[in-house]
Amino acid sequence: MIAVYPGSFDPPTFGHIDIIERAAKISTRLIVAVAHNYSKNAMFTPDERVAMLTEICAHMPNVEITTFSGLLVEYAGELQANAIIRGLRAVSDFEYEFQMAQANRMLNDKIETLFISTSTKFSYLSSSLVKEIAELGGNVGEMTPKIVLNKILQKSNVLCYNGG
Amino acid sequence: MIAVYPGSFDPPTFGHIDIIERAAKISTRLIVAVAHNYSKNAMFTPDERVAMLTEICAHMPNVEITTFSGLLVEYAGELQANAIIRGLRAVSDFEYEFQMAQANRMLNDKIETLFISTSTKFSYLSSSLVKEIAELGGNVGEMTPKIVLNKILQKSNVLCYNGG
Amino acid sequence: MIAVYPGSFDPPTFGHIDIIERAAKISTRLIVAVAHNYSKNAMFTPDERVAMLTEICAHMPNVEITTFSGLLVEYAGELQANAIIRGLRAVSDFEYEFQMAQANRMLNDKIETLFISTSTKFSYLSSSLVKEIAELGGNVGEMTPKIVLNKILQKSNVLCYNGG
Amino acid sequence: MIAVYPGSFDPPTFGHIDIIERAAKISTRLIVAVAHNYSKNAMFTPDERVAMLTEICAHMPNVEITTFSGLLVEYAGELQANAIIRGLRAVSDFEYEFQMAQANRMLNDKIETLFISTSTKFSYLSSSLVKEIAELGGNVGEMTPKIVLNKILQKSNVLCYNGG
Amino acid sequence: MIAVYPGSFDPPTFGHIDIIERAAKISTRLIVAVAHNYSKNAMFTPDERVAMLTEICAHMPNVEITTFSGLLVEYAGELQANAIIRGLRAVSDFEYEFQMAQANRMLNDKIETLFISTSTKFSYLSSSLVKEIAELGGNVGEMTPKIVLNKILQKSNVLCYNGG
Amino acid sequence: MIAVYPGSFDPPTFGHIDIIERAAKISTRLIVAVAHNYSKNAMFTPDERVAMLTEICAHMPNVEITTFSGLLVEYAGELQANAIIRGLRAVSDFEYEFQMAQANRMLNDKIETLFISTSTKFSYLSSSLVKEIAELGGNVGEMTPKIVLNKILQKSNVLCYNGG
Repeated sequence: MIAVYPGSFDPPTFGHIDIIERAAKISTRLIVAVAHNYSKNAMFTPDERVAMLTEICAHMPNVEITTFSGLLVEYAGELQANAIIRGLRAVSDFEYEFQMAQANRMLNDKIETLFISTSTKFSYLSSSLVKEIAELGGNVGEMTPKIVLNKILQKSNVLCYNGG
Repeated sequence: MIAVYPGSFDPPTFGHIDIIERAAKISTRLIVAVAHNYSKNAMFTPDERVAMLTEICAHMPNVEITTFSGLLVEYAGELQANAIIRGLRAVSDFEYEFQMAQANRMLNDKIETLFISTSTKFSYLSSSLVKEIAELGGNVGEMTPKIVLNKILQKSNVLCYNGG
Repeated sequence: MIAVYPGSFDPPTFGHIDIIERAAKISTRLIVAVAHNYSKNAMFTPDERVAMLTEICAHMPNVEITTFSGLLVEYAGELQANAIIRGLRAVSDFEYEFQMAQANRMLNDKIETLFISTSTKFSYLSSSLVKEIAELGGNVGEMTPKIVLNKILQKSNVLCYNGG
Repeated sequence: MIAVYPGSFDPPTFGHIDIIERAAKISTRLIVAVAHNYSKNAMFTPDERVAMLTEICAHMPNVEITTFSGLLVEYAGELQANAIIRGLRAVSDFEYEFQMAQANRMLNDKIETLFISTSTKFSYLSSSLVKEIAELGGNVGEMTPKIVLNKILQKSNVLCYNGG
Repeated sequence: MIAVYPGSFDPPTFGHIDIIERAAKISTRLIVAVAHNYSKNAMFTPDERVAMLTEICAHMPNVEITTFSGLLVEYAGELQANAIIRGLRAVSDFEYEFQMAQANRMLNDKIETLFISTSTKFSYLSSSLVKEIAELGGNVGEMTPKIVLNKILQKSNVLCYNGG
Repeated sequence: MIAVYPGSFDPPTFGHIDIIERAAKISTRLIVAVAHNYSKNAMFTPDERVAMLTEICAHMPNVEITTFSGLLVEYAGELQANAIIRGLRAVSDFEYEFQMAQANRMLNDKIETLFISTSTKFSYLSSSLVKEIAELGGNVGEMTPKIVLNKILQKSNVLCYNGG
């Protein structure tokens, strides 16, 4: 099974890494695909996110990190992937993910969406929560790996120097 | 990926077959495992369910039909499966399935539960709905394949003759 | 619009009456159809439920009370109804009702299921809650009309005398 | 029953048309009311949406297409409507719709909100999904009628010429 | 029990007051904490919200009104609170609130989040609904106390005079 | 605050103990009330459940273990409690609990229901899951404390000897 795990990963959290490790075990090849979009609320550029994920996933030989833009199913088709991996934490995730899975199935029926449930201890975690707490000066050390934590602290310093 | 798709399949519906076909495409080997429980409300014996599924899945060479009793994760472990497949139709499915996935993960961390969303056109379908409508004399021909439909009609005849 | 509002109504609650009054306003003819099933946990016979509803709905000239058995859509078809009315209180209602609506649509595409949301002040109410509280000796006077309340108290007395 | 089916319809999808056709069958008169709001993310002006819906609904003599601004219940009251029609696809729809139904009931108790469940084959569809996929160059031909599809393609061409 | 009830309260509704009165009965000291954020969509400044809440809660001697910025758990810690109070109206509330409760527990394990369900008659209410209806000229007199209603009408007048 | 934490506790799990410990911190007096019902599927008698909980909670001086029958709010009223504690794990819990909280509020408006979210690591746990896995011979050592585990193993032995 060749699988794609798409996302914003802004920043990567322990929840994402949990899904990557689980998906890597059942895939021949797992492509972690960072969405190449620049939003106003982004903390990191797509390149920074790829760099962090590459370092985090270095110990998993069948995992590659890339970026993509445009329609996910087209990208997955180009990679000859037969599965899209998505993590599920809660009911509200489920509804949106279910809708996207149906839309992707309509666009390309050969690629199946597989949902993996996040480990309960990360079920409350999201990138936006990490950003929100970090911006208020809270400690996100239990939410994201050290390499990401350091990058967040650097960003905060840059913001402090710039801001004043 | 060696995957197990467990269930009662009493009787198999187009929803089950949809999941089997999707799962077969991403698995090296897919074991459809009929739970070997006798409930009062059962319409078919486990052996009858295995027979129907065997006929329905004959065209998929990497799909096997078996029965199991006891803990699913132990059975999956004996088969050297690394994934359990479950279909998701709706939010209420999701909560129960999520709980079972966490429990199974606690019992055996090496086997991952993968959720596949049913095709929307079968999202309302369940074995118990098929049984309920069939028992009230309704037509379940859009819910289950011809071979199952015939077996249901035979059961109804037997019930009619027995009943009076 | 000719509409059928089916249910067990064992016993009728203020929630049911709320839906009947709302549905009566938008229907030419509204048939409240009591499911003619005898379950072990029933408090009232179908005939007793019809009698209570008939008294409760006496002031609504376009409302009729009947019983039915078998498939609802067949019964609705015989009545030349073009709509089935169902009350929605909560998300869990929604999922089951949605599934039934899809199944009924498959069985007869000419009859549409219309959902009406219960008034918030009755959103916690159900027949089984009324039964449970009444059996524990609680006061259900805010949950069900006086005529039903009196019948419940009579049942309790009968149970008391019978019980010793 | 005089019913209003309000929405943004930006653009109309097969899901909307499914609801219009179902609602038309149970209404004497059905007013499809396009919300007259200009948002930044709008693809079509209210007038363009009215034009498309008028063409799409031409075969249904009891369906009219209008626009409205301000409070929906006031508009429905002016039309002497006794029902508001809303489509339900999923649980998340339900909660928001339920809240709006209660608010509208508080503002005008004479107008009832009726929910109709979308056909399962359109349950994943939404206007924003159509816009998102169309903007990424995906094919939305299974999501929306030909007339809308052509208008979307024209918009894309205009955007291309303007953009460069 | 020293409890904090945080929120935007822009504006306070009968739903908020319901929760404050319930929470006051089980707390030794209840601090209603207005989030000190200026959003573009705000109707009232934090100071105006504090003034309204102070007047509304004047009859409850163990209730204090304050503002806070930064992380809620840090603020609650400074107050030596051992509980955070949150109102629950619906399933969608629950998921978000549950996630925040887990995050707050990770940040400070000594402060427990307690959820209280809003009275059903206010279950459809939210500050944003009040704002939306008020801006469209609707009557929000059943949604918010007189003092808030008057302030909303004053704001509308100011907007009218300024606008023209 | 005097609080009652009611339940079946058949058997107590780490999830229950998590809620008891959290509730004990915010209560002056916490009464853990075992429902005195004998169901066919019960593993332990109410007295056995009280004995296990008494041993488990011995280190919390403000926690008492009792049994009750009849209406919970009446029992809570007799204890002069002003709060009922309930644990929430998932959305499906929420809906049922919300309904019960509204019913209890109708029966006695002076007692408030407070919901506490279970620690995520126990969110999948339930007494019925423990029973189901134990009956299939699975290891429930991560789900329930040692004292309960030993009692479950004793029960299983008794069942084995009795069974033949």
